[in-house]
Amino acid sequence: MRIALDAMGGDHAPGPIVAGAVEAVRDRDDLTVILVGNKARIEAELAKYPDSALDRLPIHHSAESIGMEEKPVEALRRKRDNSISKSWGLLASGEANAVVSAGNTGAMVASAMMNAKMFLPGVRRPGIAAIFPSHRGPVAIIDVGANMNAKAEDLYQYGIMGSIYAQHVLGVSEPKIGLLNVGSEDDKGTELTKATRALFLQGPLADRFVGNIEGRDIYEGHARVVVCEGFVGNVLLKAGEGAVEFLFSQLKQEMAKLLPSLPPEAAYALGNTLKDLKARYEYQEFGGGPLLGIRGACIICHGSSRERAIKNALRVAGTMAEERINAQFISQLTAALNVPPEA
Amino acid sequence: MRIALDAMGGDHAPGPIVAGAVEAVRDRDDLTVILVGNKARIEAELAKYPDSALDRLPIHHSAESIGMEEKPVEALRRKRDNSISKSWGLLASGEANAVVSAGNTGAMVASAMMNAKMFLPGVRRPGIAAIFPSHRGPVAIIDVGANMNAKAEDLYQYGIMGSIYAQHVLGVSEPKIGLLNVGSEDDKGTELTKATRALFLQGPLADRFVGNIEGRDIYEGHARVVVCEGFVGNVLLKAGEGAVEFLFSQLKQEMAKLLPSLPPEAAYALGNTLKDLKARYEYQEFGGGPLLGIRGACIICHGSSRERAIKNALRVAGTMAEERINAQFISQLTAALNVPPEA
Repeated sequence: MRIALDAMGGDHAPGPIVAGAVEAVRDRDDLTVILVGNKARIEAELAKYPDSALDRLPIHHSAESIGMEEKPVEALRRKRDNSISKSWGLLASGEANAVVSAGNTGAMVASAMMNAKMFLPGVRRPGIAAIFPSHRGPVAIIDVGANMNAKAEDLYQYGIMGSIYAQHVLGVSEPKIGLLNVGSEDDKGTELTKATRALFLQGPLADRFVGNIEGRDIYEGHARVVVCEGFVGNVLLKAGEGAVEFLFSQLKQEMAKLLPSLPPEAAYALGNTLKDLKARYEYQEFGGGPLLGIRGACIICHGSSRERAIKNALRVAGTMAEERINAQFISQLTAALNVPPEA
Repeated sequence: MRIALDAMGGDHAPGPIVAGAVEAVRDRDDLTVILVGNKARIEAELAKYPDSALDRLPIHHSAESIGMEEKPVEALRRKRDNSISKSWGLLASGEANAVVSAGNTGAMVASAMMNAKMFLPGVRRPGIAAIFPSHRGPVAIIDVGANMNAKAEDLYQYGIMGSIYAQHVLGVSEPKIGLLNVGSEDDKGTELTKATRALFLQGPLADRFVGNIEGRDIYEGHARVVVCEGFVGNVLLKAGEGAVEFLFSQLKQEMAKLLPSLPPEAAYALGNTLKDLKARYEYQEFGGGPLLGIRGACIICHGSSRERAIKNALRVAGTMAEERINAQFISQLTAALNVPPEA
């Protein structure tokens, strides 16, 4: 298994990115991580791990890198020799089986979209899955911003691919699929939701489809795969992050007032509880969100990713890029394509 | 000031609904609250407050009421004599200056939409504002589900009306207006967001318009009015409620583990802190979300509303229905109508 890792992507690159790669190859003997980016800077990081398996951490040099705040399409055009495009290039040429980046999400997606050869056969437009917490475990929400012009067929494909992801990565057997909507009644929503609903009901996954779910139902976890169009999903994801940050900042302020009155060990335990709870929302164990619909696999990590998230993203990318899982994607997408588009 | 209150609407109706009305008329001498609903049940509730100003709490009988889970349009058709339609009828006939309900939101909106005479002059389609918390105070997000087919002109009107609401009800002078989008760059988003952006930049509120804001920016509170189309807003609102409920349930579980190790007074203080914090998210002080674009005023309360929320909704409805505020709505909407639709 060979994975191209954008060593320059993320708020803290390249330090923790390279560190994550070092750990990942230590964990898995058949894994090679191609570190894509500035050769000198990557070598300097690798020098910190003299006992590392350097033969399984080759460097693929790129002179430029795209900043987190740069405009994706413009940056991709201006900086031809950037680490994101180079990583995708390795996937396209077959030198890598998967790509991982904690860099500019827009640039990652735009770069993939420019080359339909990177899509799995039958896929219309790839979609990004984000992992939300719920009472029953992690939930995959797709799409959170790769596709701003989704058709019902796209959402239907996201349900199929999300379901395979949930099985193999989130460990859910026969995950239920929900359609994000403004109400649970059958006739709710827009033309898009109505058409998507019809496709699910006619297709081979009809028994997994639980119909419309509302925003608040996400956290119940009855559906472990939730499909929506990219604009809604993106707002939902970012607002969710904002809400959690806001709530924890308020909680911290209130707890700070309490602390002086607590015995030291209780104050310490309270601090730890909050920290653990916050970590649960970051879902670093899955490393990031997959871009579903890509040959092999692609994981897009959060910009704030450190060692642990990168290591886990490499593990998940390795799992998803395995032949049998890619074969499942293709066979289930093909089965779905045979469904008549309208009843 | 005369307000029609749907006494049968809400999870706990009519008890806390009538109680809220009793408190509201006690607080404001020039207020009459018309209690709309089952006469016998309302009388039974009123009997609990023998010292109440019964002359300012007239009952307007309706034999039927619409349940929280009923399909709005179907229920409105089947139950002609329901308390929601009757409340709107009082507004349409001029017998009431405003309406308040904690009942079925879909039925409240659908009933209003059936009669364009209830719209403020110049309003295309009313929109519901929901109140979100932020680091700088409450933020009004419009629309959270009244209009599933919004045009740029609708979002633009929501910005204008939301701005007047934020000034007079949330107490923000010159509130900034943001457009909910998937990125902060000017060219981000859909045809709808691009067209909406153009309208704001050309119109009289251009200096208040801060451009695109992302989901996570809501909680920063730089923009105290945020416009979006109804599907996105509805998902955002319900997902936000779900996230807060989920987080507090997790927090409660974790804190329960800590409690045995805490001195009783610290455990008590911790419990109170969590309760206070949770209450902050319910924003009962504003009573509910206004349906903006209605003659007079309309406040739609959360189904779980009790006495305090109803009392505050009646207070806010009273403020909004005042002549000078309605005049502001009309004059600012008219000024905006003179703006060319496209540059």
